[in-house]
Amino acid sequence: MTTTENALGAAMAAEIAEQPRVLADLVRRAGEFRAIADQLVRDRPRFVLFAARGSSDNAALYGKYLVEVLLGLPAGLVSPSTTTLYGAEPDLSDVALVAVSQSGGSPDLVEVTEQAARRGAFTVAVTNTPDSPLGSVAQHTASLGAGVERAVAATKTYSATLLALHLLFTGVRGAQTESADRIGELAQTCLDANADRVVDTARRLRFAERVITTARGYSLATAQEAALKLAETSYLVTRAYSGADLLHGPIAAVGPETAVLAVTGTGPGGAAMTEPLSRLSAQRAEVLRIAVDDEAQLFVPELPEELSPVLEVLPLQRLAWQLATSRGYDPDHPEGLRKVTETR
Amino acid sequence: MTTTENALGAAMAAEIAEQPRVLADLVRRAGEFRAIADQLVRDRPRFVLFAARGSSDNAALYGKYLVEVLLGLPAGLVSPSTTTLYGAEPDLSDVALVAVSQSGGSPDLVEVTEQAARRGAFTVAVTNTPDSPLGSVAQHTASLGAGVERAVAATKTYSATLLALHLLFTGVRGAQTESADRIGELAQTCLDANADRVVDTARRLRFAERVITTARGYSLATAQEAALKLAETSYLVTRAYSGADLLHGPIAAVGPETAVLAVTGTGPGGAAMTEPLSRLSAQRAEVLRIAVDDEAQLFVPELPEELSPVLEVLPLQRLAWQLATSRGYDPDHPEGLRKVTETR
Repeated sequence: MTTTENALGAAMAAEIAEQPRVLADLVRRAGEFRAIADQLVRDRPRFVLFAARGSSDNAALYGKYLVEVLLGLPAGLVSPSTTTLYGAEPDLSDVALVAVSQSGGSPDLVEVTEQAARRGAFTVAVTNTPDSPLGSVAQHTASLGAGVERAVAATKTYSATLLALHLLFTGVRGAQTESADRIGELAQTCLDANADRVVDTARRLRFAERVITTARGYSLATAQEAALKLAETSYLVTRAYSGADLLHGPIAAVGPETAVLAVTGTGPGGAAMTEPLSRLSAQRAEVLRIAVDDEAQLFVPELPEELSPVLEVLPLQRLAWQLATSRGYDPDHPEGLRKVTETR
Repeated sequence: MTTTENALGAAMAAEIAEQPRVLADLVRRAGEFRAIADQLVRDRPRFVLFAARGSSDNAALYGKYLVEVLLGLPAGLVSPSTTTLYGAEPDLSDVALVAVSQSGGSPDLVEVTEQAARRGAFTVAVTNTPDSPLGSVAQHTASLGAGVERAVAATKTYSATLLALHLLFTGVRGAQTESADRIGELAQTCLDANADRVVDTARRLRFAERVITTARGYSLATAQEAALKLAETSYLVTRAYSGADLLHGPIAAVGPETAVLAVTGTGPGGAAMTEPLSRLSAQRAEVLRIAVDDEAQLFVPELPEELSPVLEVLPLQRLAWQLATSRGYDPDHPEGLRKVTETR
């Protein structure tokens, strides 16, 4: 492993930069997602379950909002251990199980998916590795087509997973969000517009020891993924809270030495952040906003709220990279982390 | 507000100490929970949803494991905002909605519960305030009977909620865990056995700035609640990870300056912590175990795994109190926190 500063995080930087192309490619394949969506519609599930770990778990949270709001179906995140550790055998007829995994290699997700099909579920794998064990046990496989991801911290596969879930569930609803067609171009705008802002943000957070992230609604997935990315790459204990949960307790732990990254979109989720933001300011926290307005610390191009998380995460990935490399860490090879994690 | 040291956290200390009595009282009322369980069985739900915020959300996670493992039904945690912010109107026939709230006063939970009933769900409120707005909109109300909770940080209502959920769902299954009858007495043993251990643990963590908690299976609820309690009372950014999710990323952020509180029970959940514990040690973290064995830093009396979380949290509540008061904070009145939080 080289130690020259230029090489630090080279793979992660390259993969962040690839996202405009990856997202544009994915939208062009919308037909494949619609085909799976058509099957899903015919299966008439009453309930949608997501199975995922790590970054994919944050993508699944976004999927849960899409299902509840756009499809009007209750949805939940599976605790794989109820199957893999305790041998639970729930009746899953009328259930659609969506397994989300970049590598498709984690044994617990493979087992959960395999057993779900056996118990009557309609199963879909959303993965960057369609010829993986997960891809082979799922009845349907939605491929991200993001190309190999070399950095241990997932970036392009995360945004591609969000877009894939969006294409899948708007396919079920029968109407794609129009702006999806422009997502590649908007992703480039988003990266370009934040180049200097990210450097400035990383300088402001150079000595931060206490960072929390917060949002509500669709953007909560972004807050969670940003917290995870910072934890993985910059060795910070970073925690995400829904703006509502924050007020139910953790606001007490916020003070002048706390940095808050607040994602505040344009829709109802963003509007609901007004009170949390004012309470955070009252606690004298350093609040940095990720939003569509020019005065925000990090800028997001305007999109319908249900599509915004695909772009919101971009400057935050870049921030994690910048914070890590400016502290001399290599985000491509965080200590103690492997690319394919085998949990059971 | 007085500033004498004796008064710091007096309410929280008293409420922690009340738990043996509160839990014993609750078990004596098992019949009331069985009656609600009987109704639930007649309704034959296909799916169970939990709605909760803050500490109650951690209790709901425990409830989710009970439902998936003991009842063999898929279960999920509601995102209240899909209803309250985005106006989602899912079909909830065949769904049982369990709303968990100490105060029964949070408007979002009241709205979610009211609307769930209108959309066909069987609704139960688990609350310490049965004559609350939540109690009045739910079709069934399971009362904790824990007495007024004055400290802002929930303690006795948390353990009582876990036991209430246990009584409710073992009631559905038709067989109560035997050791539940001795829970009050075991809770007293647990508090007594940890008195010195908690003081020692707080000394060891006196200067800790980076604390994470971890567990798998049923005990994950304990890890989450411990992290929340430390955040609320001791102004620490504390984060909980499932032992599996930890290996999928955040392990990279663990180093010699990280304190880890690891809950490792006797059953499959505890056994599955072997690899995470060895990886944490390899990262040179300071790992403190909460377990049934005598060599653990904090001690838990032996119980069937699915009942253990009711007791595991006791020494951790006491630890949060000890850390807060030894640093001069008043856990009864954390800055910026109110007892009834009104989120929408």
